[in-house]
Amino acid sequence: MAGDKGITPRRDDFAAWYNEVVLKGELADYSPVRGSMVIRPWGYGIWENMQRALDDLFKETGHENAYFPLLIPMSFIEKEAEHVEGFKPELAVVTHAGGKELEEPLVVRPTSETIIYSMYAKWVQSYRDLPILLNQWANVMRWELRTRLFLRTAEFLWQEGHTAHATAEEAEEETRRMLQVYRRFMEDWIAMPPLTGLKTESEKFAGAVRSYSCEALMQDNRALQAGTSHFLGQNFARQFDFTFQTEDGREEYAWNTSWGVSTRLVGGMVLTHGDDQGVVVPPRLAPAQVVVVPIWRSDDDAVRVREKAHELMSRLRERGVRVRMDERDHLSPGAKFYEWERKGVPFRMELGPKDLEKGQVVLVPRVEMGDGERKIFLPEEEAVATLPERLDRLQDFLLEAAIRRREENSYRSVDTMEELAQIMEGPGGLVYTGWSGDPEVEERVKEETKATIRCIPDPEFQSEVAPERCIGGGKAEMEVVWARAY
Amino acid sequence: MAGDKGITPRRDDFAAWYNEVVLKGELADYSPVRGSMVIRPWGYGIWENMQRALDDLFKETGHENAYFPLLIPMSFIEKEAEHVEGFKPELAVVTHAGGKELEEPLVVRPTSETIIYSMYAKWVQSYRDLPILLNQWANVMRWELRTRLFLRTAEFLWQEGHTAHATAEEAEEETRRMLQVYRRFMEDWIAMPPLTGLKTESEKFAGAVRSYSCEALMQDNRALQAGTSHFLGQNFARQFDFTFQTEDGREEYAWNTSWGVSTRLVGGMVLTHGDDQGVVVPPRLAPAQVVVVPIWRSDDDAVRVREKAHELMSRLRERGVRVRMDERDHLSPGAKFYEWERKGVPFRMELGPKDLEKGQVVLVPRVEMGDGERKIFLPEEEAVATLPERLDRLQDFLLEAAIRRREENSYRSVDTMEELAQIMEGPGGLVYTGWSGDPEVEERVKEETKATIRCIPDPEFQSEVAPERCIGGGKAEMEVVWARAY
Repeated sequence: MAGDKGITPRRDDFAAWYNEVVLKGELADYSPVRGSMVIRPWGYGIWENMQRALDDLFKETGHENAYFPLLIPMSFIEKEAEHVEGFKPELAVVTHAGGKELEEPLVVRPTSETIIYSMYAKWVQSYRDLPILLNQWANVMRWELRTRLFLRTAEFLWQEGHTAHATAEEAEEETRRMLQVYRRFMEDWIAMPPLTGLKTESEKFAGAVRSYSCEALMQDNRALQAGTSHFLGQNFARQFDFTFQTEDGREEYAWNTSWGVSTRLVGGMVLTHGDDQGVVVPPRLAPAQVVVVPIWRSDDDAVRVREKAHELMSRLRERGVRVRMDERDHLSPGAKFYEWERKGVPFRMELGPKDLEKGQVVLVPRVEMGDGERKIFLPEEEAVATLPERLDRLQDFLLEAAIRRREENSYRSVDTMEELAQIMEGPGGLVYTGWSGDPEVEERVKEETKATIRCIPDPEFQSEVAPERCIGGGKAEMEVVWARAY
Repeated sequence: MAGDKGITPRRDDFAAWYNEVVLKGELADYSPVRGSMVIRPWGYGIWENMQRALDDLFKETGHENAYFPLLIPMSFIEKEAEHVEGFKPELAVVTHAGGKELEEPLVVRPTSETIIYSMYAKWVQSYRDLPILLNQWANVMRWELRTRLFLRTAEFLWQEGHTAHATAEEAEEETRRMLQVYRRFMEDWIAMPPLTGLKTESEKFAGAVRSYSCEALMQDNRALQAGTSHFLGQNFARQFDFTFQTEDGREEYAWNTSWGVSTRLVGGMVLTHGDDQGVVVPPRLAPAQVVVVPIWRSDDDAVRVREKAHELMSRLRERGVRVRMDERDHLSPGAKFYEWERKGVPFRMELGPKDLEKGQVVLVPRVEMGDGERKIFLPEEEAVATLPERLDRLQDFLLEAAIRRREENSYRSVDTMEELAQIMEGPGGLVYTGWSGDPEVEERVKEETKATIRCIPDPEFQSEVAPERCIGGGKAEMEVVWARAY
């Protein structure tokens, strides 16, 4: 049975490993529709936990949810020049509906700036109507050529925040506030610590003035752009005639921001924590944090063991632990262990007739927390009492491990393109260098090393000594972080 | 100001009233896309509360959430003959994507039976893999000619449950269980008491063997089909080769059910409880159950009143009450009162400098609960302590009023088509008659009275004495309920 787990080890083929753990962990499956996946209950449960946590953070920061149409008139998308240039190649287009050809084609939203700001224009008259702080949970569609489960799919689920403000300062503040909300969420829930920083001109959102992003380092030392927050200036307001009367009676265009994260985060979670046994789900995101596996031979045992298991479950639930029991009787305990390992449940609790006699249970954390303990034999009282704290400890352990890995794979004071190329061809990672700000240098490095500038890092991620030399030669104007990216 | 509320009274033009209260209550707005609406934060907050309550009920009954693709190959929709006949005229079709014409057109899902059962076919081998009990929260698209905010829109939000079972009995049981879940939800949360019963052949879901529905009577005495639950038999399993091995080793097609409710329920809530002042939101669904309106003249007052208001808010929150304060200083208290009345907040709490001196607040319920009290002056302690119970009472009051209205507008022992026609031309309502089961009678009554058979009522809604005569003449085989419907 053990040999049948059949997951390609990460070091043999990381890409194959990723697909296999996603499929075998039952997070998602391929669908009959090119580029669209099916999110299975275990994967969707993780997404639901992400949604709930993010939604709370959005509401704490003053946002409300709303819902805007899926289909957007093609002419809307075409209004903002950079926007259409960025999105047109990826659009899915509805040309027929209700048995007729449409007068104007409608696109399945790739993002909703255009339709949303056209509505704001209708709702806002004066500065008193501002700010508008809305978010929408929705599906979007971008027709990608090469897709990968969760990481890049034609359809994906996301949230998109869209705000409107009376001043550029306030909009900029919002943009940065939401970037920090994302960062906090990624650290505290996904245990996936990102860098934050500004995107270069060539990497920013199509239609934005400035884009900020969260960039997390995956186990294969590639970066994952995990969330973005955009200062849109007045670009969309101008196209949709979204004006307001200022306090002193002038007419002015509103200032917008937009920010989003998607089901890509589930992929990020897998790429950050998964191992050769399968997915590892951080406790705060796990649909089930503990799975109880009752073990028995005789029917008599079965009754007693199940009874005790139910009792333990309700006591754990009272303590706020999400717990499930695997009572399927056509599977051996071993088969169940492997299945829940593949799915990444944080703790397994084994309970057999002998444990019952001794008043104990066996706890097995999904990952060894560096203390060498794998199977923990505990009096049942103690197991119940300490599980909440053990879950917290596992959550912290995963974050610390991810921070350590990120730091171990960060290279500072890299001066030459050769050195950068060597790192990219070798271990990969995050490489900090100086940059003049010249897009030609950016393009040249990309061609030669396949690394892109992930961001101009926020102050707290900058090197203690600012680099003096640009990676392309000459004087550096700023520090940037390079990586190959998903 | 009062005269400027500008809502057409219900008795003058019910349809106009409905649109106006939805728009002015800021539940929704028209969008630039034909037939698609924008759900504004207040309306979306109501939907979120519906979602949360339903989702809990689904999970309590053993269901999990998942997510399936938005776009479905046209060939899938075409497999089940009745299904395609029912849905084809309403499809929105993606013909181009990624800058190219697609080899096979994709339809924006009007419902997801086809794509979902094609996946179940892949996941299920044996009876041990059954039942599958999944639900999805999603947007769907049906290109309707005549649309109305919430009640009938091209795009709407809904949930669709899709289950698979090893036996017909189990599937039938599931179908009826979910119908009762819907009924309970509509009664307990929306305070909208539906009839439940079986649909006739001509009114059932395209592709179902049997459809059941919840039918609620609106204030204009038309019926609203508010939720449906379908026993699909093996119709879809056969088309998608969804088989399983039975316990005794035979290959059999699986038995399916599907069931759904949508944002239409928000329209049902408005049509059930709204009045000439605007929307009325039942407390359990209200995004804010209490709005505190602080009143002041001097700046000194403002500080003290606001301080007290914040204190009251946190004390109410501790008691589980959803409360908001309206601190906007460019609006008069009167303007705020009207706005929150239009939105249907269950209670308003007024608090001015004089109230502060007396240690009192003024509570104003959105609707008079038959006790003649409109403005309730209460010591602040008492107001805080009694608000949870007052909210419960308002919830109960709304349900009782709706049940009473339904019963007052139900007509039993109606024997002739003339009588039925008279009721339909006059007050409208639910008319119970005998029926032979002959579809020609059903069609004829529909043509002459514009009433349709809403359902063959479940036993508890049937008349004490079963009707003997069919409305079309001859002997009755069953009792049915007629109404004009949304």
